[in-house]
Amino acid sequence: MKPYREMSREELKAEEEKLRKEYRKYQAMELHLDMSRGKPCKEQLDLSMGMMDVLDSNADLCCEDGTDCRNYGVLSGIHEAKVLIGDMMENNPDNIIIYGNSSLNVMYDTVSRAYTHGIMGNTPWCRLDKIKFLCPVPGYDRHFGITEYFGIEMIPVPMSPTGPDMDMVENLVSEDPSIKGIWCVPKYANPTGYSYSDETVRRFARLKPAAPDFRIFWDNAYGIHHLYDDRQDYLIEILAECKRAGNPDMVYKFASTSKITFPGSGIAALATSPNNMEDILAQMKVQTIGHDKVNQLRHVRFFKDIHGMTEHMRKQADIIRPKFEAVEQILDENLTGLDIGTWTKPLGGYFISFDSLPGCAKSIVAHAKKAGVVMTGAGATWPYHKDPNDSNIRIAPTYPPMEDLIKAAQLFSLCVKLVSVEKLLGEERTAE
Amino acid sequence: MKPYREMSREELKAEEEKLRKEYRKYQAMELHLDMSRGKPCKEQLDLSMGMMDVLDSNADLCCEDGTDCRNYGVLSGIHEAKVLIGDMMENNPDNIIIYGNSSLNVMYDTVSRAYTHGIMGNTPWCRLDKIKFLCPVPGYDRHFGITEYFGIEMIPVPMSPTGPDMDMVENLVSEDPSIKGIWCVPKYANPTGYSYSDETVRRFARLKPAAPDFRIFWDNAYGIHHLYDDRQDYLIEILAECKRAGNPDMVYKFASTSKITFPGSGIAALATSPNNMEDILAQMKVQTIGHDKVNQLRHVRFFKDIHGMTEHMRKQADIIRPKFEAVEQILDENLTGLDIGTWTKPLGGYFISFDSLPGCAKSIVAHAKKAGVVMTGAGATWPYHKDPNDSNIRIAPTYPPMEDLIKAAQLFSLCVKLVSVEKLLGEERTAE
Repeated sequence: MKPYREMSREELKAEEEKLRKEYRKYQAMELHLDMSRGKPCKEQLDLSMGMMDVLDSNADLCCEDGTDCRNYGVLSGIHEAKVLIGDMMENNPDNIIIYGNSSLNVMYDTVSRAYTHGIMGNTPWCRLDKIKFLCPVPGYDRHFGITEYFGIEMIPVPMSPTGPDMDMVENLVSEDPSIKGIWCVPKYANPTGYSYSDETVRRFARLKPAAPDFRIFWDNAYGIHHLYDDRQDYLIEILAECKRAGNPDMVYKFASTSKITFPGSGIAALATSPNNMEDILAQMKVQTIGHDKVNQLRHVRFFKDIHGMTEHMRKQADIIRPKFEAVEQILDENLTGLDIGTWTKPLGGYFISFDSLPGCAKSIVAHAKKAGVVMTGAGATWPYHKDPNDSNIRIAPTYPPMEDLIKAAQLFSLCVKLVSVEKLLGEERTAE
Repeated sequence: MKPYREMSREELKAEEEKLRKEYRKYQAMELHLDMSRGKPCKEQLDLSMGMMDVLDSNADLCCEDGTDCRNYGVLSGIHEAKVLIGDMMENNPDNIIIYGNSSLNVMYDTVSRAYTHGIMGNTPWCRLDKIKFLCPVPGYDRHFGITEYFGIEMIPVPMSPTGPDMDMVENLVSEDPSIKGIWCVPKYANPTGYSYSDETVRRFARLKPAAPDFRIFWDNAYGIHHLYDDRQDYLIEILAECKRAGNPDMVYKFASTSKITFPGSGIAALATSPNNMEDILAQMKVQTIGHDKVNQLRHVRFFKDIHGMTEHMRKQADIIRPKFEAVEQILDENLTGLDIGTWTKPLGGYFISFDSLPGCAKSIVAHAKKAGVVMTGAGATWPYHKDPNDSNIRIAPTYPPMEDLIKAAQLFSLCVKLVSVEKLLGEERTAE
């Protein structure tokens, strides 16, 4: 098929007619499908059911140093969990704090602590007139939700396949002391699936921020979430790189097992420098006596070590890889050559990022919804939910069963085509 | 024996000599005992080991409404956990939010949210010059730790066997709009073991605070933690009483299963009015996608219902009651009649509160420590760790094995006597 833009008005009208008919067929199906959130599917969760057996009533619930995990204490987490998560994050166990079930909660608390008490002796953010964060776009809506909640001004920075626009990041960060942070999903990014190049990470580690309390919020949510065995992105480890560059305290690095074991019942972690750890633990000891150590122990006993976790992730990939490929194939078959959209083909993570013609994303998502398929809201990938081009849509292929996913992806393609045709016909009318 | 104060100098000297000898015997034993924290002992934890079996790999991890507890979501907790905890807290399940493993964390977050964003539309506390909290004394050190961390001025309010001095509370709260809260452990209080009388609770519910965002921080940590079957304190339910009194939004009520199942791996909860819930959930949805639902389900499947939990608490009582009684008996045998200390005999909770002669508490704790017994630091039960009388000491009898506990209590009694004699001899010297 030829690009829509090269079609005559008559051809477009005929195409619109055809697409409308098809769309009505989908509406008649009364679908109730959900491609909105990056949730593991049932089969993925089933992979971790063995975790429910490793600690039974006969189990010894003491950890290696003899501490009874059932009781109070051990603020920063049990050692063997730090070793396991250290291997997962590629960090020294001594630089790791193990938390509860949610890395989002850790990020929120990190911003909240900076707001109420400041970072390492610097002025609390609540005492400053203006705080700004850089936000690579498209990005993760829940990151932006935290900074918005604290009234922090968010500045979008364009993403490319090698990471954020580092010229822009370097200039802004070195000039403006009110810029206190940047949200990063450095590997298999949400939603593009892009991984930061070696050069990008090196430039991050060598930033010269005007603010002494500037921190990189490095959410390595998909560090070991590869889709392929033979094709994997590699990410330079940021803590080590910052240390080498003489910026040891510049990074908070987050991760969790939410998309490894159970999203609701995993363990979250933060890796950072000794100075930052001291700063954080001084607050944490006021906030809690300690996180759930039995669940930490459960994870360690289940995986044994990083090899166990790696093998586990291979099984996860086997379940979701066909879903990514199915969506990509449907998009290919339906949209290639029409010049009405581009999409990413990630090697890992949980999302495909789709860019429509400018001004079409909201309408595409609305059309999908009217036919029973829920997508992530258009605009969600931008700060304040404002995508200036109204073009980016996040596709989350993991949760629906394959059969549903195929239907949803086909309907989505149809909506892209229909909205694009309408848009082009509208433009013609305006031009007439 | 006659009261120390009635002894002659010679009698006191002889007593001192005898006590010193005895003290040296304890020192020679090289004890390493801990009566410092309110931690359940191993036998108590063993009572909940069945909880490790109720969810195995064959279990259905969906809750009653069909939600897969393993996955993301359900911000305020699963319904059946709200029912169980609602019965435990004597509140409507609809007024309950289930959290992670730590009610201290919930309290911290509640203060932190008020500090950063204000309560129900009121000015955030960080934007006000002065914030004050009332602190019934002696009280819980970790409560005071939270308010101290946020720079909140703490005003001590004396406790009596019926609760805080309500004349003082009413006057202060109605006059000073900078007083934003009061820390309460209303039942089997930490450390006195006192429970608030009906009149006290009614007067709390009828407070007329000058600050619209004044809240009672009602930490009902020991609501079902009775020591006796036949003698139990009864506490009027504060939410219902506040609603009746026309103050429905004035209370945040906290509880947890930390001292019911596992301190490190229980579930915490907050009960409050619909207005407060709406206010809190608006923030929580930015902070997390949800707490650990599998652990919520585990608790529900283990206890089944409140009757199961009540029976469980009876077994807990059977383990710790003899410990309380042993300590009380040793104090009785050693100190009664000497007029050098008073102590509480609680019907529940985790602590005995001891008051020495003024100016002796620090020295008593130091003496115990030098002979190998760690007590809670003297002063810990007061804001800023400053007990103006230097007389209150918290005794935590639950954790040590009985044999250790007996030794520790005997040594403690000895230290009380020794320090008191020294004090009285010192006073005589000063008077000479």
